[in-house]
Amino acid sequence: MGITDTISNTLSFLKLGESRKIFYNNPINNQLRQDVEHTYIKAYEYNEQELIEHEFASVQECARLKDSRYNVWLNIEGLKRDEIKFIAQTFGINDLVEEDISSIGHNAKMDTFENYIYCLVYMLSYNNNRFFIEQEQISIICGRKFVITFQEEHGKDAFGKLRLRLQNKDSKVRLNSIDFLFYELLDAIVDDYFYLMDKLSMRIETVEDEILNNLNKRSFAKIIFYRREMMILRRNIYPFRDIITVLMRNEDSFFNKRTLRYLKDVSDHINQAREMVENYRESISNIQDLYLNQENNKLSRSMKVTAIVTCLLAPATVIGGIFGMNFKYIPFLNNPYAFYIAIAFMLLIPVYMIYVFKKNGWF
Amino acid sequence: MGITDTISNTLSFLKLGESRKIFYNNPINNQLRQDVEHTYIKAYEYNEQELIEHEFASVQECARLKDSRYNVWLNIEGLKRDEIKFIAQTFGINDLVEEDISSIGHNAKMDTFENYIYCLVYMLSYNNNRFFIEQEQISIICGRKFVITFQEEHGKDAFGKLRLRLQNKDSKVRLNSIDFLFYELLDAIVDDYFYLMDKLSMRIETVEDEILNNLNKRSFAKIIFYRREMMILRRNIYPFRDIITVLMRNEDSFFNKRTLRYLKDVSDHINQAREMVENYRESISNIQDLYLNQENNKLSRSMKVTAIVTCLLAPATVIGGIFGMNFKYIPFLNNPYAFYIAIAFMLLIPVYMIYVFKKNGWF
Amino acid sequence: MGITDTISNTLSFLKLGESRKIFYNNPINNQLRQDVEHTYIKAYEYNEQELIEHEFASVQECARLKDSRYNVWLNIEGLKRDEIKFIAQTFGINDLVEEDISSIGHNAKMDTFENYIYCLVYMLSYNNNRFFIEQEQISIICGRKFVITFQEEHGKDAFGKLRLRLQNKDSKVRLNSIDFLFYELLDAIVDDYFYLMDKLSMRIETVEDEILNNLNKRSFAKIIFYRREMMILRRNIYPFRDIITVLMRNEDSFFNKRTLRYLKDVSDHINQAREMVENYRESISNIQDLYLNQENNKLSRSMKVTAIVTCLLAPATVIGGIFGMNFKYIPFLNNPYAFYIAIAFMLLIPVYMIYVFKKNGWF
Amino acid sequence: MGITDTISNTLSFLKLGESRKIFYNNPINNQLRQDVEHTYIKAYEYNEQELIEHEFASVQECARLKDSRYNVWLNIEGLKRDEIKFIAQTFGINDLVEEDISSIGHNAKMDTFENYIYCLVYMLSYNNNRFFIEQEQISIICGRKFVITFQEEHGKDAFGKLRLRLQNKDSKVRLNSIDFLFYELLDAIVDDYFYLMDKLSMRIETVEDEILNNLNKRSFAKIIFYRREMMILRRNIYPFRDIITVLMRNEDSFFNKRTLRYLKDVSDHINQAREMVENYRESISNIQDLYLNQENNKLSRSMKVTAIVTCLLAPATVIGGIFGMNFKYIPFLNNPYAFYIAIAFMLLIPVYMIYVFKKNGWF
Amino acid sequence: MGITDTISNTLSFLKLGESRKIFYNNPINNQLRQDVEHTYIKAYEYNEQELIEHEFASVQECARLKDSRYNVWLNIEGLKRDEIKFIAQTFGINDLVEEDISSIGHNAKMDTFENYIYCLVYMLSYNNNRFFIEQEQISIICGRKFVITFQEEHGKDAFGKLRLRLQNKDSKVRLNSIDFLFYELLDAIVDDYFYLMDKLSMRIETVEDEILNNLNKRSFAKIIFYRREMMILRRNIYPFRDIITVLMRNEDSFFNKRTLRYLKDVSDHINQAREMVENYRESISNIQDLYLNQENNKLSRSMKVTAIVTCLLAPATVIGGIFGMNFKYIPFLNNPYAFYIAIAFMLLIPVYMIYVFKKNGWF
Ligand SMILES: [Mg+2]
Ligand SMILES: [Mg+2]
Ligand SMILES: [Mg+2]
Ligand SMILES: [Mg+2]
Ligand SMILES: [Mg+2]
Ligand SMILES: [Mg+2]
Ligand SMILES: [Mg+2]
Ligand SMILES: [Mg+2]
Ligand SMILES: [Mg+2]
Ligand SMILES: [Mg+2]
Ligand SMILES: [Mg+2]
Ligand SMILES: [Mg+2]
Ligand SMILES: [Mg+2]
Ligand SMILES: [Mg+2]
Ligand SMILES: [Mg+2]
Ligand SMILES: [Mg+2]
Ligand SMILES: [Mg+2]
Ligand SMILES: [Mg+2]
Ligand SMILES: [Mg+2]
Ligand SMILES: [Mg+2]
Ligand SMILES: [Mg+2]
Ligand SMILES: [Mg+2]
Ligand SMILES: [Mg+2]
Ligand SMILES: [Mg+2]
Ligand SMILES: [Mg+2]
Ligand SMILES: [Mg+2]
Ligand SMILES: [Mg+2]
Ligand SMILES: [Mg+2]
Ligand SMILES: [Mg+2]
Ligand SMILES: [Mg+2]
Ligand SMILES: [Mg+2]
Repeated sequence: MGITDTISNTLSFLKLGESRKIFYNNPINNQLRQDVEHTYIKAYEYNEQELIEHEFASVQECARLKDSRYNVWLNIEGLKRDEIKFIAQTFGINDLVEEDISSIGHNAKMDTFENYIYCLVYMLSYNNNRFFIEQEQISIICGRKFVITFQEEHGKDAFGKLRLRLQNKDSKVRLNSIDFLFYELLDAIVDDYFYLMDKLSMRIETVEDEILNNLNKRSFAKIIFYRREMMILRRNIYPFRDIITVLMRNEDSFFNKRTLRYLKDVSDHINQAREMVENYRESISNIQDLYLNQENNKLSRSMKVTAIVTCLLAPATVIGGIFGMNFKYIPFLNNPYAFYIAIAFMLLIPVYMIYVFKKNGWF
Repeated sequence: MGITDTISNTLSFLKLGESRKIFYNNPINNQLRQDVEHTYIKAYEYNEQELIEHEFASVQECARLKDSRYNVWLNIEGLKRDEIKFIAQTFGINDLVEEDISSIGHNAKMDTFENYIYCLVYMLSYNNNRFFIEQEQISIICGRKFVITFQEEHGKDAFGKLRLRLQNKDSKVRLNSIDFLFYELLDAIVDDYFYLMDKLSMRIETVEDEILNNLNKRSFAKIIFYRREMMILRRNIYPFRDIITVLMRNEDSFFNKRTLRYLKDVSDHINQAREMVENYRESISNIQDLYLNQENNKLSRSMKVTAIVTCLLAPATVIGGIFGMNFKYIPFLNNPYAFYIAIAFMLLIPVYMIYVFKKNGWF
Repeated sequence: MGITDTISNTLSFLKLGESRKIFYNNPINNQLRQDVEHTYIKAYEYNEQELIEHEFASVQECARLKDSRYNVWLNIEGLKRDEIKFIAQTFGINDLVEEDISSIGHNAKMDTFENYIYCLVYMLSYNNNRFFIEQEQISIICGRKFVITFQEEHGKDAFGKLRLRLQNKDSKVRLNSIDFLFYELLDAIVDDYFYLMDKLSMRIETVEDEILNNLNKRSFAKIIFYRREMMILRRNIYPFRDIITVLMRNEDSFFNKRTLRYLKDVSDHINQAREMVENYRESISNIQDLYLNQENNKLSRSMKVTAIVTCLLAPATVIGGIFGMNFKYIPFLNNPYAFYIAIAFMLLIPVYMIYVFKKNGWF
Repeated sequence: MGITDTISNTLSFLKLGESRKIFYNNPINNQLRQDVEHTYIKAYEYNEQELIEHEFASVQECARLKDSRYNVWLNIEGLKRDEIKFIAQTFGINDLVEEDISSIGHNAKMDTFENYIYCLVYMLSYNNNRFFIEQEQISIICGRKFVITFQEEHGKDAFGKLRLRLQNKDSKVRLNSIDFLFYELLDAIVDDYFYLMDKLSMRIETVEDEILNNLNKRSFAKIIFYRREMMILRRNIYPFRDIITVLMRNEDSFFNKRTLRYLKDVSDHINQAREMVENYRESISNIQDLYLNQENNKLSRSMKVTAIVTCLLAPATVIGGIFGMNFKYIPFLNNPYAFYIAIAFMLLIPVYMIYVFKKNGWF
Repeated sequence: MGITDTISNTLSFLKLGESRKIFYNNPINNQLRQDVEHTYIKAYEYNEQELIEHEFASVQECARLKDSRYNVWLNIEGLKRDEIKFIAQTFGINDLVEEDISSIGHNAKMDTFENYIYCLVYMLSYNNNRFFIEQEQISIICGRKFVITFQEEHGKDAFGKLRLRLQNKDSKVRLNSIDFLFYELLDAIVDDYFYLMDKLSMRIETVEDEILNNLNKRSFAKIIFYRREMMILRRNIYPFRDIITVLMRNEDSFFNKRTLRYLKDVSDHINQAREMVENYRESISNIQDLYLNQENNKLSRSMKVTAIVTCLLAPATVIGGIFGMNFKYIPFLNNPYAFYIAIAFMLLIPVYMIYVFKKNGWF
C-alpha cells in the first residue's frame, strides 16, 4: 500500500464525506427511499433430490412459490414499494415488516411473528477504491417452508459460496430443512464481516507504520477516520449479536436442534467479531497515544534547540554589545589581548551555562 | 449555512444563555409555574364513521365528553392550575398527576393507575433562528375511552400530520380503539426527535468542516455547545425508552395485541434515536480530538519557526558582535578577504546547525 | 455575585479547608462524638381533630408519649448519648441503632426492624457566607404510632413548612396515619436538595462566565472545588435513592397504599436530583475543557508572537551585524544607496519569511 | 508532617520499592512460603462464667481443645507447614484450605464447608516510618464451637481491644456463642482499615497543600504513589465486601439472628470504607488535575515572559543595528536630535506592539 | 535485564511485528490452517494400580483406546485435518468441534455435548529471546472415560509436572476419576499464566525504573507494547473465567463433588489472574502518566531557560545597541563613567526583571 493510496484515502474521506452517511440513518426519511428502476428476482426451489432455479421478470410470477412442495429461497435485489407490498400480501407478511424493508438506516433488528421470523441486518464490504466500509441493508424473512431475502442493491452480496453449495446435492443446506438455509445466510453475512476486518486491520497497521516512521502528516485524521469505521462495525455487530441470542432461545421452535448447534457457531463468530472490534479500538487508541507522544517529543525538541542556541548566543551578544559601544573611555580597548579574552568569555560562558543547566537536570 | 450564521449561533449561546435552561429543572419551583393568560381547548370525538371537532371556550364545556360514546381526544394548550384541577376532578385523575402536569422540568415519566395511564414527556424542536433545542412539556393521560393531552405552550406541537390522518375515515387511528391514538401521539413525538437530530447533525458537520478548513476561532465553544445539546437529547431519549419498555409489558392490558406491535415500532425508533445520539457524541468527541490536535500542531509549528530562525540568526549575531567591537587590536581587521570569510561563516554555520539537528531528528 | 465574593469563596476553600470534611467520615471515631451541652426536645401529638405541642426540658418527660393515643412526632435537636439511650430503651429501639444515631459521617442508610424503620440521612444546606455545602445528620425512627427524629444540631432544619402544615387541620399530614408524616419528612429533606442545587448551579454558571470573560485566575481551583461539592451531593443522593427504593417495596407493610403513591413522588424527585447532579458534573467537565482550551490558546498565542517577532527581528540583526563590523575592506560601505538597500532588505526579508511560513501553514 | 518526612517517603518509595509487592501476588509461588522459625500459639477457652488462657509451646498441645466444652479461640502467629497440617487434620479441615493458609498473595476469599467457614483476609496497617501500607494475611476458620486464626506474622495484629473485651465477663463476646467471636474478628480487621485511611487521608492532604503552595517537586510521583496505595485498599475492600455479603445470606445457618444484625453493621462499615476509597481516588484525581494545571500555568508564564521580552527587545535591536552600520552615507547621523528620536522609537514601538497584541487578545 | 535487551525487545516489537498477531484471529481463515508435517501422538492408560504409556505412529492405532477399561489421556501435538477427523469419528465427536479444533485464533470457548465437554483455550508462555507472549491453542475433550488434547505445536506445553504426577501411584490424579485429570489440565494452563505474569511484571518494573532514571528514549513505545500484551492476557483470562464458571455449575454432572472443590480452586486462581491483570493495567497507566509528566517537565524547563536567558540578554542588547550607533551627537559618550554606568544597567536590569517576574510568580 503506497503513500499515494493512503493520501488519496484520506482525501476521499476529507472531501467526499462518504463516511458521513452515519448522520443520515433517519427513520422519518422513509418516504425518501427511492424505488429502483429495475429489480432482479431469482428463486430456488430445492429438496434433497432436486434444485430448480428461476429468474422472474415480475413479482407476480413468484406468487405460485407460496404453495411449492419444495424449500423455496426467493431473492429480490433492489427495492420497489409495490413489489414489496405484493410479496408481503402474497406470503402473509405484516405491514410493519413491509415498512421496515423499505426503511433507510434502520438498526439491525429481528421480529418474530406466528409464521415467520423477520430479520433486518447489513452486509458490510470494503470499498477498495475509495477505502471505506459499504453497507447494504438486507431483509430476511424465514417462514416454515420459504426464505425471502430483499437486498438494497443488485450486483453484490455475501451469498456467492452459498449458491455453489446449493448446487451440490450432498451439501448440508440441501439435506436439511429451510431453517438451515436461514442459518447459512446469517453465517455468510458474518463471514464477510471478517473479510472486512482483515482489510481494516491491514490499513490500521499501515497508519501505525507511517507514524512510527514519521512519514505522513495526515496520520491523525486517518486515526479519527478509522475510529469512525470501527463505530460502524460496532453498530452492526452488537445488534447482530442480540439477534442471534434471541434466535438461539428458539422460543417459537423455528429451528430444529441440529440447526441450533450451527447457530451457536455463528454466535461464537459474532462474539469473536465483537472482541476483535474492541481490540482494534484499543489498538487505534494506542496508536493515537503513540502519535500524540511523538508530536509532543517534536515540540519538546524544538524548545530545546531554541533554549540551547539562545544560551550559546547570549554571551557573544552581550560582550559584543559592550565593546561595540562608542564611549570614549572604555577599559581594555587598547589592551592587545583584550580581543582574545573577550572571545574566550564568549565561548566559555555558554559552555558553563549549559553545564550548569544540564547538571541541574534542566535539559 | 454561512459563517455569519454560525457566529451568531455561537454568540447567541454565549450571550443569551438559552441552553442554560438545563440548570432550572427544579421540582421545588412548582409554585413558579405561571398560569398562562389564555388556554386553547380542542376536542375530537370520533369513531369509524364519524369525527366531531370541538373548540371550547372554557374547560367546563369539556365535562360532558366524559360520557361520550365516541373515542375522545381532548387537547389543552397552555396550563392554568384551575383548569387542570377541574379536568382532573371531572375525569377522576389523581392529585399527584395534577401536580406533575403543572410541574416544571420534571424528568420524562410514566405512572399507571387503575383506569388510566399518565405520561409526561417532552416535545423537542429546533429553533432555527437562535440555533438551539426547544423543549415543550406534554402530559398525556390515556383512559379507556379518552386521551387528554396538556401542552405547555400554544401554537406548535408534533401532531399536525396526526390531525390530518384523523380526518381520514380509513386511517388506522380511526379504525382502532383509543390506545392506538395514544400510540400515534408517542410516535409523532419520537418522529420529531429525528427531525431535530437531522438538524443537529448538519450543524455538527458544519463545525467539523470549519475545523478541517481552519475557518473559525470559536470552534471549541461550539463543540462544547453541541455536547450540551446532546445532553438534552439523552435526557429525553433514555427515560422515553424506559416508558416504552414499561408500556410494552402491558401489565394492565391497556393495549390490544395489534397496538402492541405498533408500540414495538416506536420502541425500535427510540432505540435508533438512542444509538444515533451515542454516535453523535462519539463524533463530537472525535471532532474535539481533531481540533485539539490541530491546535497542537499550530503550536508545534510556531516553536519550530522560532527554533529555526534562532539558529539562522545565531552566527551572524555572534560574528557581527565580535568584529563590531572597538578593540584596538583585532586580528583580520585589515585582511581584505576577512569580510567575505565572516559572511561565509554566517551562512554556513546555521546551515550546519540545522543539518545536525535534523540528522538527530530534533526537528 | 461580585468578584470579591468569588475570591473569598476560593480563599475560604483554600485556607479553611471546610470541604475537607470529606476525609473524616470515619466510623471508628464514634467515640469522638461530643455530647452537646443542651438538647432541644419538642413533640407533637396530633390526630384529625387535635394537635398538642410539647416542649420538654428532659427526655424523661417524653416517656409517656410511648402510650399516647395520638400520632406522635418527637423531635430532638442535639445529641447526648445518655438521652439517646433513654429514648431507645423507652421506645424499644435496638442498641445498634443507638450507635448509628451517635455515629459521625455514616453513609445514608436504612434498617427495618419488626416494629419500626430506622433511617439515617443528611439534610444539606448551602452556607451563603462561606460558600459550601453544610451537612447535618438526621436519624428518623418510624414506628407504628410515632416518629422520632434526632438532629445533629439545633437551630436549622428542613421541616419549617411541614410544621405549618401540621397546624392546619385539613392538611394531608393530619388526615393520614403516621407513615404519611414519615413521607413528609423525607420529602422535605429532598426538597432542600433542590434548593441547594439551585444555589450551586448559579455559582457554576458564575465560574463559566468568569472563564468566558477571562476575569479570574483561580478559575481552575474553583472548578475542582465544585467537582468536590458534586461528590458530596452524589454521596447523599445515591444512597437516598436506594433507601426510597427499599421503602417502596413495603415488605413489612409500614405504608398504606395511598402513602406509597406519595413515596413514588419522592422517588421521582430523587431520580431527578440524581440526574441533575450528573448534568452538573458534565457541565463542570465541559467548563473545565473550555478553561483548558482557553489556557492552551493563550499559550499558543504567546508562541506565535515570539515566532513572528523573532522573524521580524532576524534580518535587521544579521544585516546590522554584518555592516557594523569594523573590517577595513567591506564592500558597499561607500555606496551612497547602500544604507537604503540594507534597510530595504531588513524590511522585505521578514515579510517574505512570514509569507512563506504562512503559505506553508506554519502559522 | 515535615517536608523531610514526605521526601524520605517518596525516596523510600522510589528506592526501596516496597509498594511493588503488588506485583508478587502469585499463587504458583506457594512453594516459596518459607516456614517461620518460631510460631506463637495462644488459645482462649471461655464461656459466660470462665476464661482460660493458654500459651502452647507446640501445636500438639492444641489437640485437646477440639473437644473442649468451652468456646475456643486458637490463635497461631507465624506459619509452619507441618503445624498447619497438624491443626487441619486435628480439626478436620480440608487440604485445599490448608494450601490456602500457606499461600502467598491470595485474594481475600471465603469458602463454606459442612462444619466450618474458612476466610482468608488481610489486616492492613500503616507503616509510620516508611510510609506505606503493610498487609498481613490472616486465615480464620470458624467452626461450631471453635475459631482458629492463622496470622502470617507475630507481634502485631488487629485484635488488641478484642482481647481486653474477652477478659470482661459482661462483654457481648462472652455472652454470645462462637459466631459472635467470628464477627468481632472481622469487625476489628475492618476497624483497622479506617485507622489506615485516616493516615492516608492526612498524607493526601499534605500533598495537596504542597501543590497549592508550590513547595515540592516530587508531588507528581507522590500522587502516583497514593494512587497505588488506593489500589491496594480497593483490592482488599471489594472482596471483603463480597465475603460479608455471602456470610449475611447465612445459607448454612452458622450465625444466629442476633449476630446477623451485627454482621449487617460490619457490612455498613465496609460499604463506607468502599465509598471513602472511591472518594479518595476522586480526590487524588482532582489533585492531579490541579497539579497538571499548575505546571501548565508555569509553562504558559515562561512563554509569556519570553514573548514580552522579545517584543521589548526587538526595536532596540533593529534600530541599534541600523545606525550602528558603518556605511559612509547614513541619513540623520549628523542630526542632533536623531539619537533621541531613535531612543523614542525604541521605547514606543514595543509599547505599541504589546498594546496591539493585548488588544487582539494575544497575551 | 540490560538496556541492550530492552532495546532489542523494542526493536523486535517495532520491526518484526510479532505482537501484531492479534490482528489475525480470523475464523474465515480456517482454510488457512496448514497441516503440520508430523504429529506426535502419546497416550496414557491409567488407574489406581497401573499406568501404561503409548507412543503411536498413526492415529489409527488410537482407535482401540476408545474401549479401554482404563482412564485414557490421548495427547496429540500438531494438527492434521485428516487425523482430527479420524479421532472425531472414532470417539463420536461433533463435526463443529472438529472445525473448532482446526480453527485459528478462535476465542477461548466451551461446549457441552451429551457425552463429552469440549474446551478450546490457549497456553501462554513468554518468549525470553524476543520478549513477547506466545500463544498456543489447545483443545481439550473430556469424555466419561477419556480426555483428548490437541495441541497446535509440538515441543512445549504446560503439562510437564502433571506427567510426573501421573507416574506417582499416590497422586490425586491417579486416585480419582477422569474428571480430575481434566481439572489438572486446566489448572496447569492457568498456573502458566502466572509464570507469564511474573515475567511481564518484572519487565514493566524495568520500564518504570528506566523512566524514573531517565535512561531510555523508547520508553513510551514500550509502555504501549505492554498495554498490548495486557490485552492478550485479558483476551485469554476473561473467557477462561466464563468457562470455569459454567463448568462449576456442573449441569450435566460431569464432575463429582470432590473435583468441584478443586475447580473452585482454579476459579480462585483465575480470579486472581484477572485482578492481577487489572492491577498491571493500572500500573502501566500510572507509569504512562509518570512518563508524560516527566516529558512535560523537561519541556517546561527548556522554556524557563529560554525565558531567563532572554531576560538576561535583553538590556545588554538594548544598551549595547544604543551606544553602538554612529550618531554624531550622542550624550554621555565622552563621560568617563558612562561605560561603567552602562554596564551596571546591563547587570541590574535583568536582575530586577527576574526579581519582578519571580515575585509575581511568573517563573
Ligand atoms: Mg462528518
Ligand atoms: Mg431510517
Ligand atoms: Mg446486493
Ligand atoms: Mg460457514
Ligand atoms: Mg462462519
Ligand atoms: Mg465453531
Ligand atoms: Mg451554563
Ligand atoms: Mg404546544
Ligand atoms: Mg409514524
Ligand atoms: Mg415513528
Ligand atoms: Mg418498523
Ligand atoms: Mg483536601
Ligand atoms: Mg458526613
Ligand atoms: Mg438541625
Ligand atoms: Mg418533594
Ligand atoms: Mg412536597
Ligand atoms: Mg410528582
Ligand atoms: Mg484538554
Ligand atoms: Mg513498580
Ligand atoms: Mg498480598
Ligand atoms: Mg500478626
Ligand atoms: Mg466494633
Ligand atoms: Mg466496626
Ligand atoms: Mg452501625
Ligand atoms: Mg500493530
Ligand atoms: Mg490467537
Ligand atoms: Mg505444544
Ligand atoms: Mg496445581
Ligand atoms: Mg493452580
Ligand atoms: Mg486455593
Ligand atoms: Mg502540552
